[in-house]
Amino acid sequence: MIDTDTYAMAEADASAISLGPIGVFDSGYGGLTILRELRKTLPEYDYLYLGDNARAPYGSRSFEVIYRYTLEAVKELFARGCPLVILACNTASAKALRSIQQRDLPGIDPTRRVLGVIRPTVEVLDNVTESGHIGVLGTPGTVASESYVIETGKLFPGMSVAQQACPLWAAIVESSEADGDGADYFVKKNIDALMAKDPEIDTFVLACTHYPLLMDKIRKYAPQGIRILEQGQLVAESLKDYLHRHPEMEIRLAKGGDVEYLTSENPEKFDALASMFTHDGVASKHCALD
Amino acid sequence: MIDTDTYAMAEADASAISLGPIGVFDSGYGGLTILRELRKTLPEYDYLYLGDNARAPYGSRSFEVIYRYTLEAVKELFARGCPLVILACNTASAKALRSIQQRDLPGIDPTRRVLGVIRPTVEVLDNVTESGHIGVLGTPGTVASESYVIETGKLFPGMSVAQQACPLWAAIVESSEADGDGADYFVKKNIDALMAKDPEIDTFVLACTHYPLLMDKIRKYAPQGIRILEQGQLVAESLKDYLHRHPEMEIRLAKGGDVEYLTSENPEKFDALASMFTHDGVASKHCALD
Repeated sequence: MIDTDTYAMAEADASAISLGPIGVFDSGYGGLTILRELRKTLPEYDYLYLGDNARAPYGSRSFEVIYRYTLEAVKELFARGCPLVILACNTASAKALRSIQQRDLPGIDPTRRVLGVIRPTVEVLDNVTESGHIGVLGTPGTVASESYVIETGKLFPGMSVAQQACPLWAAIVESSEADGDGADYFVKKNIDALMAKDPEIDTFVLACTHYPLLMDKIRKYAPQGIRILEQGQLVAESLKDYLHRHPEMEIRLAKGGDVEYLTSENPEKFDALASMFTHDGVASKHCALD
Repeated sequence: MIDTDTYAMAEADASAISLGPIGVFDSGYGGLTILRELRKTLPEYDYLYLGDNARAPYGSRSFEVIYRYTLEAVKELFARGCPLVILACNTASAKALRSIQQRDLPGIDPTRRVLGVIRPTVEVLDNVTESGHIGVLGTPGTVASESYVIETGKLFPGMSVAQQACPLWAAIVESSEADGDGADYFVKKNIDALMAKDPEIDTFVLACTHYPLLMDKIRKYAPQGIRILEQGQLVAESLKDYLHRHPEMEIRLAKGGDVEYLTSENPEKFDALASMFTHDGVASKHCALD
């Protein structure tokens, strides 16, 4: 529910504050699947996407490295005027979000916000599982963080969460091999290993933003009747709800439906692969991150 | 041949100069296959290995990014006292070596040297090929640089060089899948594509230091009788020859057979995977690179 008084007050202040886009950060290209759904559900806002492609993938890196890289990216998006940043990367959300949210960061406006993709995903689990047994497919970093296990335990203590690392899936997608026959072995291997951990699983969480591009293969090797959760729409619905509940943030967002892309890599290189994720032309600019 | 006068003069100066280890740089773990052969052939020297694991793999990155990362690593190894640095990474050798060798780098002692792995590999080609048709298997970055085509053209203008990018091979090795059935599809696919470009190829160059770990699969799908060149021993023999010809450099190298490891990642993480390449225990230290 919206608190109308707060909303009116926030609106009265709008002329005094500078508006900025919603920042969307990912280690590489995967976050573009989240951005696509954000733009479908919330087309009125401006977006600024930042991909750290010069240092991607994050999936196998340590906590220390992921925290440092993610913090650099968040600071960059804040410096470019974003009042709100979505970490559209499970590895960054799993390893860096809590530390960034909990620490006072020197020189950073404390009214700005950073949101992740894990909480919105976990929140819907009780609507989709019947057995109460969840299977999480993610990068080695996301799995090692145990974030899905911990978050699910907080919201739904009765649920059982089994996890499986899929170290090659993101690389297969980025090598344009998602539809090739070579993907089958690795998709089947990791799904079989997950089901062996808990045969009662009735819901898969695709806990990496690259994995929706492997959906055909995942359906092929998933047991009949398994529900498969993609994050893009869940994150978009969750953000919509968040902005209803936080008019003081909503009022700070620039509206116009514009989207801009930044990459730490060579922009031409980024644009060529990005269109596979956006289904649309992309013209990015370079942004140094270190 | 050694110039004995120069050698004697260099020896006389030895007490006045500080000795340092041979620096061996790679984007990640692959250079450990080169280091292993260096230590076999030249066991008397000290070595300092540096892996930029926090930003690996380099294989798909742009020229600008690879040049910047490689330069940072070379400066770090020089700062730690290495008179000589081997770029034990084909992508770095292909994209950054020439620029680093040709530019005056501020604050860097111009008598220090940086050597790559491509030239020593190309130099032996006329000893191994009968048909004069070479096939190069490498990362997308190495292939896009055309370095093997250009270097071979300089030394052996009559030879024909076909190239094939193998975007997933290094990732397969780093995911410990080199011996698994999933590797077969990608090894066969890339070798078939290479042979389709030139059926007269009689020699494969494994132009990535990860690829020796896929040797069983490569032999399985290579046509009968193909010669397969690994770089480790070639680079070691070439360095041995270089040091004979350059006593003024040889005299600056610390002797004792010690080896130390640095990584831009978490050292425990590095040590766990590094032993797969060294066949030996590894205890690394952290080294920030950016």
